[in-house]
Amino acid sequence: MGKPKKKKRTVPRLARGFRDLTAADLVARRDMITRVIEVYERYGFQALETPAIEYVDVLGKFLPEADQPDAGIFAFRYDDNEWVALRYDLTAPLSRYVAKNFQELGMPFRRYQTGSVWRLEKPEPGRFREFTQLDIDIVGAGSILADAEIVTVLAESMEALGIARGEYVVQLNDRKVLNGLLEVTGVADEVVPPVLRSLDKIDKLGPEGVRLLLGPGREDPESGDFTKGAGLEPAQIDTLLAFVDSPGSDRATYLETVAGLVGESKEGQAGLAEMRELDAILSERGLGTDQVVFTPAVVRGLAYYTGPVVEVALTFTDPSSGRPFGSVAGGGRYDGLVGRFTGQQVPATGASIGVSRLLDALNKLGKTDPGRGICPVLVTTLDKTRRADYQRLADEVRAAGIACELYVGGGGAAKQFKYADRRGFTVAIVAGPDEFEADQVSLKDLRLGRELSQAEGFAEDRKKWLESLPGQVTVPRAELVAQIREVLARHATT
Amino acid sequence: MGKPKKKKRTVPRLARGFRDLTAADLVARRDMITRVIEVYERYGFQALETPAIEYVDVLGKFLPEADQPDAGIFAFRYDDNEWVALRYDLTAPLSRYVAKNFQELGMPFRRYQTGSVWRLEKPEPGRFREFTQLDIDIVGAGSILADAEIVTVLAESMEALGIARGEYVVQLNDRKVLNGLLEVTGVADEVVPPVLRSLDKIDKLGPEGVRLLLGPGREDPESGDFTKGAGLEPAQIDTLLAFVDSPGSDRATYLETVAGLVGESKEGQAGLAEMRELDAILSERGLGTDQVVFTPAVVRGLAYYTGPVVEVALTFTDPSSGRPFGSVAGGGRYDGLVGRFTGQQVPATGASIGVSRLLDALNKLGKTDPGRGICPVLVTTLDKTRRADYQRLADEVRAAGIACELYVGGGGAAKQFKYADRRGFTVAIVAGPDEFEADQVSLKDLRLGRELSQAEGFAEDRKKWLESLPGQVTVPRAELVAQIREVLARHATT
Repeated sequence: MGKPKKKKRTVPRLARGFRDLTAADLVARRDMITRVIEVYERYGFQALETPAIEYVDVLGKFLPEADQPDAGIFAFRYDDNEWVALRYDLTAPLSRYVAKNFQELGMPFRRYQTGSVWRLEKPEPGRFREFTQLDIDIVGAGSILADAEIVTVLAESMEALGIARGEYVVQLNDRKVLNGLLEVTGVADEVVPPVLRSLDKIDKLGPEGVRLLLGPGREDPESGDFTKGAGLEPAQIDTLLAFVDSPGSDRATYLETVAGLVGESKEGQAGLAEMRELDAILSERGLGTDQVVFTPAVVRGLAYYTGPVVEVALTFTDPSSGRPFGSVAGGGRYDGLVGRFTGQQVPATGASIGVSRLLDALNKLGKTDPGRGICPVLVTTLDKTRRADYQRLADEVRAAGIACELYVGGGGAAKQFKYADRRGFTVAIVAGPDEFEADQVSLKDLRLGRELSQAEGFAEDRKKWLESLPGQVTVPRAELVAQIREVLARHATT
Repeated sequence: MGKPKKKKRTVPRLARGFRDLTAADLVARRDMITRVIEVYERYGFQALETPAIEYVDVLGKFLPEADQPDAGIFAFRYDDNEWVALRYDLTAPLSRYVAKNFQELGMPFRRYQTGSVWRLEKPEPGRFREFTQLDIDIVGAGSILADAEIVTVLAESMEALGIARGEYVVQLNDRKVLNGLLEVTGVADEVVPPVLRSLDKIDKLGPEGVRLLLGPGREDPESGDFTKGAGLEPAQIDTLLAFVDSPGSDRATYLETVAGLVGESKEGQAGLAEMRELDAILSERGLGTDQVVFTPAVVRGLAYYTGPVVEVALTFTDPSSGRPFGSVAGGGRYDGLVGRFTGQQVPATGASIGVSRLLDALNKLGKTDPGRGICPVLVTTLDKTRRADYQRLADEVRAAGIACELYVGGGGAAKQFKYADRRGFTVAIVAGPDEFEADQVSLKDLRLGRELSQAEGFAEDRKKWLESLPGQVTVPRAELVAQIREVLARHATT
């Protein structure tokens, strides 16, 4: 080992569907997650971390593509000869955790968890096989008060991130209402899952696309793939679309509409009662329809939901699509999931924030600071005999709480300034024999230099610019930190 | 779905070798990582996150068990028919990242990364197949100044965690010195890797165990497994052990000893020069031998190290073993790793903190707060008609910045107080018709109750205690937050 061998070079490739994340994104993500977790913890949710790997039978398979049993997850044979898989969400492992520790945990159990999940989906631009979720759940409470807590925490999380009312809206619907509607429409039990999955696509495909999925089937115009239809009658489809395709409405209108639609269906009536109670609790908390609405189009693709379902939609126009930004979080009540293990029903409700999507939204809303996580100050080391002095300069800046890198590479001024530019420092500290002699230090405002160099007519003037050294000042050594603060303040960088 | 089916229950098991982590540990870990990252960022290290999965040829295989080619990693066939694996450390992915982005990155490139790594090792008590690392590296700097930065950051990280000088020590050695010593001792090139791995076991097996590994081979007294020996002569073994088994020494003594040992070996002389320069730089920074020592016993098992190697050892006695706590971080210079991809040598140096081990140490040193991450206040909901009032109480506490859970489960007082006890709340807010009528609220000091109930003679007095309601006070509604703060302050919980 040690020295590279000539014979064979490895190609430094990322595995298909994966990506690297760098400082600006990671620090913005960390800030965002920290703020959301502060809200979660304020409401009594406690951290949990389950492993990345679980037995396949423990995870179950509750992805929307449940009809393709092998697709969707990273599974492999374990050294005990059983099948394991990387978790595809944080809800299945939570159910396992609660079932495993059922006797010791007090119920209701509130936990939050954040971490990577992995899905073996077709990679697309902006869609990766590893992504981060940030979940809250309450297990062991059948009361609608628990669902209301999830809704409240979601709304408060958005506001904690600086997303204003009007920029976000929490949208609610109820699976029991939908099931009741399917019942009175005469939809057979065995097609309920594909019908719900089809209705869930209303945002993506529009009513005409969903009409095809509910009826004869649909060919995707881009891929040419044909999806088998649920085979409903046109009259049934009309009834379902009339409800699901109605615009997000105020809560009172929704309750009125549903009351007229679910008829004698017991499940429908139960759903209506849940939504009435949710409306009452939310009103008591002061959550108005500027924050929480009832939206028939919210269906959620997963088969396991049993009661209220929720999505958080961002309403501002996404500059990259020209349409509303859309959903950044979703969830609902899933009273059957823990029972897979315990045999007795353990009610549960929760939601998951899609971290990358929400971060993308914050970036587009201008609510992240791209300078965070980037070190602002570089101490150049032009005179190798002054190593100890350079170390002292760097230590002094750090002691003032300002991040500061000591240049430890080779090369002279040209190489070091090129490096400083490429890495995006704001200030370079420059000191040579003259400065040390005079107990002074020079500061170069690199950002000003970059701005000037990008200004019109710069190229012709380059020589003159170099002579005038814009943004470079020589100051007494004792003023080092104060002067750095001044430059940083000028660029509003911390 | 929905309701659990009788037919077949899944057993809620953890995959072999994995574990769940709960709030107290996770919050302590988060606090610890945050503090260390503050130090990293202050020195100009920037965040990077590479994926959990990489192609197997990209990761290479640099674990100590490199002689067992299939062991040690979680590998499986990918959907593009290549082999992928979960990362087993953060260094191999960093090398891939740097090689892939070599043209765009300015060098030296400083990054930190934290995250899970996975190793398919034999599970043992306290040893898991998923664990967290927290790494810093500088790539593209051959200067010893870069190694000195890593050492400085490690020392400062320990101090940022409240580990005092004397409780930790950074230990350095140099692979070139060791290679030089092997050269003058006449050790053949092909046995250098097993010889280094054997020397690395000095802490674990002691000199007699290492003597067997270097010579005829060693049978493990517990497992009976036989490890083939390196076949060195007794005189060679004596020379090597005389160096490696010498106690951690001050830097001057080390330099003197090494000067006498490496003789005419060019590599040994180069290593000696590196250690002399390290000593000079560290002295310039004011890092004395109370923080950084030169220790011949530090070898590091990995084959890829090429220069200075480092370990951070905690010196306090571990109550569970009665011996010094030992290593919590390690690393060194690895100038060949990026060259696997680029074909040209790219020097690099870094270190990795073992997060679980360091957290275990902080717990044992009493430097973590087990109350962090546990919600202190519960609003009981005894009178279901007062739901809106209970919500207002909870909101008021949260608005004061105190985490507060609203009880959303079923049941009356007995069930709710049992829950409060089990989940470890400090204060329960209790309000019934009387309190609401009088604009008052009752606070129950649950921790005081738990302490009293564990006191001697309590069982006999239980009835009397219940009547006297220790730690319960009824206060005006307006004093709610002030009174909660008082109880929390009494128990020093935030």
